[in-house]
Order: sequence, then structure tokens, then C-alpha cells
Amino acid sequence: MTKGLQSIEFEKSPYLVSSASVAGKKEGEGPLGKMFDMVEKEDLFGENTWEEAESTMQKEACLLAMGKAHVQAGDVRYLFGGDLLRQGVATSMGVAELGIPLFGLFGACSTSGEALALASMSVAAGYGDYMLAVTSSHFGSAEKEFRFPLGYANQRPLSAQWTVTGSGAFLVGNRRSHVRITGVTVGKIVDFGLKDSQNMGACMAPAACDTIIRNLVDLERTAEDYDRIVTGDLGYVGQSILFDLMRGKGYDIKKNHMDCGMTIFDQMSQDTHAGGSGCGCAATTLSAYILPKLIRGEWKRVLFVPTGALMSTVSYNEGSSVPGIAHGIVLEHC
Amino acid sequence: MTKGLQSIEFEKSPYLVSSASVAGKKEGEGPLGKMFDMVEKEDLFGENTWEEAESTMQKEACLLAMGKAHVQAGDVRYLFGGDLLRQGVATSMGVAELGIPLFGLFGACSTSGEALALASMSVAAGYGDYMLAVTSSHFGSAEKEFRFPLGYANQRPLSAQWTVTGSGAFLVGNRRSHVRITGVTVGKIVDFGLKDSQNMGACMAPAACDTIIRNLVDLERTAEDYDRIVTGDLGYVGQSILFDLMRGKGYDIKKNHMDCGMTIFDQMSQDTHAGGSGCGCAATTLSAYILPKLIRGEWKRVLFVPTGALMSTVSYNEGSSVPGIAHGIVLEHC
Repeated sequence: MTKGLQSIEFEKSPYLVSSASVAGKKEGEGPLGKMFDMVEKEDLFGENTWEEAESTMQKEACLLAMGKAHVQAGDVRYLFGGDLLRQGVATSMGVAELGIPLFGLFGACSTSGEALALASMSVAAGYGDYMLAVTSSHFGSAEKEFRFPLGYANQRPLSAQWTVTGSGAFLVGNRRSHVRITGVTVGKIVDFGLKDSQNMGACMAPAACDTIIRNLVDLERTAEDYDRIVTGDLGYVGQSILFDLMRGKGYDIKKNHMDCGMTIFDQMSQDTHAGGSGCGCAATTLSAYILPKLIRGEWKRVLFVPTGALMSTVSYNEGSSVPGIAHGIVLEHC
Repeated sequence: MTKGLQSIEFEKSPYLVSSASVAGKKEGEGPLGKMFDMVEKEDLFGENTWEEAESTMQKEACLLAMGKAHVQAGDVRYLFGGDLLRQGVATSMGVAELGIPLFGLFGACSTSGEALALASMSVAAGYGDYMLAVTSSHFGSAEKEFRFPLGYANQRPLSAQWTVTGSGAFLVGNRRSHVRITGVTVGKIVDFGLKDSQNMGACMAPAACDTIIRNLVDLERTAEDYDRIVTGDLGYVGQSILFDLMRGKGYDIKKNHMDCGMTIFDQMSQDTHAGGSGCGCAATTLSAYILPKLIRGEWKRVLFVPTGALMSTVSYNEGSSVPGIAHGIVLEHC
């Protein structure tokens, strides 16, 4: 069951029964636009604040994921969810009315991996037939949380990323589907001492490197055993650092690496600089783009590694570094 | 294994192998002062900021808990931790150098219950021999996070609570001790629409009521089957509301109820108004006061129900209500 230092290989692998993605206007205009289940033309999603909009996205994503599988909220044993906002209010306010017992999580942009790990661990352990994993981010609420009022029109450095407005929900359970979660690698905090919150890719790349290598060593695999190794939101800067770090350790993943932050936007036409980011980036890309390929069997085995930068405005202003964390989820066609 | 709607009864119950409590000066002067493993006379714990002080408390609590059991960080498979600060930085910065794979959590002041639930679920499922659960709060960092600069000398209403400066860490594993975690009841978000962030007890009491009754129904028990039903930090106001709500549902827990927020401070001499609060309140009281009684067999079975109020300054300022959540942990002498 436990494999190596940080991984679990499930004896009876749970299924990823269904999933759903809800995205904002800009994401809808990007390369994956037609693949999302729902694109709102107006980023407030009918609410009064960005935070309420984000909560509504989470609720809609959960309802859509359950609806696709014809599963009711009462059939879902536990919900694992989180977001980027202080005290996770997008999740608390979003999923409250579903009435599902909740484990609130915080793993920055790695939260979709954390939620999928705990949901699959709980199903595999027999703690319930269905678990929900959900995460979200919203450009408006994230800029308010971490950066400057949008009206200031601050310039963004080229290493900065664009927070995705989106939510992805995943129903994990024992019911047969075409994708199984066969293993997880729980990540450690990796701190290279970087302090630039406008260069998250660099802050997170060392954690991605650590978790990917740990997964390969723990499960005794090579990078080629995966059709794709998918990071969450390293972006263009973080990807090149990841390649350098991996090469330094004797691994080459250039051929089969994909980054959700580089996939969800068109860098040139959408002015998103180093790429997309946020809990919603990896989650919506997994649901809309990666899972369909796994379901069709176009990809047989994928290592999904959402990456998070651990910081707050307080830790940043007090001079702390921005450590990273990344969790690995092994997804297989079946 | 699963029992009723929200609970788990472990077939092979994990042990609470060891625990540790680290507390601040005021807590050290309170009724439990002599019971804490470590009391710092200076609330900065040798650091430069309240946030770093809180991180240091978490690290010290983890090291003490592991040290008591002669377990190294490398022997601990996963760490489940969280705190009250935005983006959980007290945990991220505190446990980073332990190098243990991390699941970051947010459940407000219910986080110690959430962490113990996931740690025990993971041990019982065979995902590792040892798991650590840790939470913390700090009066200085919490006031900065949620309220007004201390220098303003704002008046506190009598319903307000005093955030405990403290951290509790718990090593859960397969190695025999005198306390087992025999079951958990995962809580739902309960929202009665209350909006007063200076009256957290009232916001959390409905969730405590819901989880306690759910535990009794799921496990087919009466309140008398527990030597104590221990809530986290309802305080004096929340306790009386809890009693009313429980009576309305036909339950009387007055005889065997205890609240950590009413236990950790002396209300009169310490000027703490409605009682203690914060993730560290329930965690340090569990480690310093409740577990020794369970270890000695003075209490045979306790239902530990830390309670959380789900809010942020943003959600509060935008007019959202303050819903509550509570998780139940069944602890038994063995």
C-alpha cells in the first residue's frame, strides 16, 4: 500500500467517476474555451462580489460533477475543498448549502492535488462510496487578496502569472469509469529561499522537481512510464527552471511535460505573461482537457502534479521566503 | 467501518501515541499553566514577528511530541496541520524544516479535530505507521489578522473571546499507548445566519450541536456513554446556547459537558470575557489536561469536538454570515 518514502499505491484503486469545470470569460476565450462545461460571460457570476462569485463557481462545479454521475449531495460522504482566499471563505461559503461533511484544505495552487489525494485515500480505505474534491480561484478575488487594487493599473512583470477564474470539481468513488487514481505522492515543503511573489513559477519549480522525482523513485518508474507529466501552474519561467533542476538530477522530462498554466491561455494574444495560475488553473485543465484524453485512452497514464506557492501578504511583507509544495496524483485509463 | 451518515468507527483503532503543548505567558498563568509542556515567558518566542512566533510554537510542539515517543521526523509519514492565519502561513513556515510530507488544512478553530480525524483515518487505513496532527493560534497574530491593531486599545464586548497563544501536536500511530481514537464524526457547515464576529460562541454552537447529536445517532450512543463531551471554544455564551439547542432536540449534556475555552483561562482574574478561543485552545487543552485523564483512566471515553467559525475580514466586511463547523473525535482509555 505505502510505496517508498512519500507515496501510496492503492490496492483497490478508486475511480474518478465524473468531473466538471466552470470558467470565466477570459478562460472561455482561450485555447480550452470550448472544453469547459460552463463559461460565464460576466465574471461576477450573478453575485455582488468576487468572493461570492468564486463561491458560486465552486457550488456550480460540484453540482455539475454530481449531476453528470446522477449522484445526489446526500450520497457524497465527505467533501475535500479549498481555495486561495484567506480563511478559505470561497469554499466555506460555496459548498455550505450542499450539506456535505467538509474537510477544508489549504495547499495554495496545489490544493486540487491535495483534495484528490485525500478523496482517493478515503475511498480506497472504505470510508465512503463517493467523495468530492473541489478547488477554485478567481482573478478578481486573488488580485484583491494578494496584490494591488485593479484600479491602480499596476504594471505586471513578465514573470508574473494570471490567476485563472475557474473551479474544478471531481467525484471520486467506487463506481466504474474510464479513469482510476492508482497512486498518490504527498509533497513536502521545498524552500529555495526565493522571495519574489511576482515569480511564482520559480518558487514552485523546486517542489515540483522534488515530488516528480519522489514519485518516480517511490513507484520505481521512469519518466517515460507516463504519457504526460503535468504540472499545475509553473508557467514559462517555472517550466524552464524545472527542466534545469530535473536535468541536474539526471532526469529529462522535456518530451512529455505539460503545464496547465501554459495550456489554459494563449500567451501572446491574451497578454498573460508567464502563464495561468491559481487553484482553478490545474483543476479546470484537468477536468476539461486532461481527463477527456485519459477517458478516450489517448493517454494511458498521467502524473498530475499541481504546484503551490506558500505565502500570504503578511509573510511576504515581513520578508519571509515563498516556499513551494506539490502533490502527485497518478491517473490511469481503464 | 462507516457508521451512520457522517461517522467512522475504526475496525483497528489507531493510538494517540504522544502529544505536546506549547503555550504563551498568559496561558501559563492560567488554571492549566503547570500542565503545559512548555510555557514561554515572552510571547515572541525569540522571533521578530507574531507570525514567526506562532510558527516556532508549531515546530516546538511537533518536536516535543515526537521526542516523547522517541520518533524521528523521518518516521512520520504525513503531517496534517493548520492555523488561523491567511494562507496558513504559521503552519507552512513552522513545519517546513521537519521535512514531513504535508497536508495543509483550514477549519478555523476546529482544525485540531480535522487534523486528528485525517491522521487517524490515514493510520487506520495503513497509509503509514505514524502521522502528526498539529495546530496553533497566537493572540498577537490573530488580533492582527482579524481585528484591530492592539495599539488602538479597542474595547472588547463581553461576548468576545481571547485567542489562546499555544500549539498542540499529536502523534497518531499503531504503537500501543493508553489512548485510542476509536471513531470520528466529520462535521458539516451549519449557518444560522449570525454575523457578529465578536460573538463566535453563538456562531459555533449550532455546529457543535449538530456534530454531537450526529455522533450520538451514528454510533448509537447516549450522552452518558461519554465521561465528557468536550467542545473546543464555545465559551460561556456559546455553551449556554449549546445547552438550549441540545435541549430543544431532546438531549441534556449539562452534566458531562466541558468547554476548553472555559477551562484554559480564569475568566475573572484573567479578564478573558467569554473564554479562550483559537486553534491552540482546544489543542493545548487536549494535550495538557484531557489526555492525561484519559491515560490514567480517570475518564474512559471522551468526545472531543473542536468548533470553528468560518469567516475572514473580507467575508465579514462584505456582510456574509459566520457559519460554524465542528468535528468529533472519540478518544478512549485502553
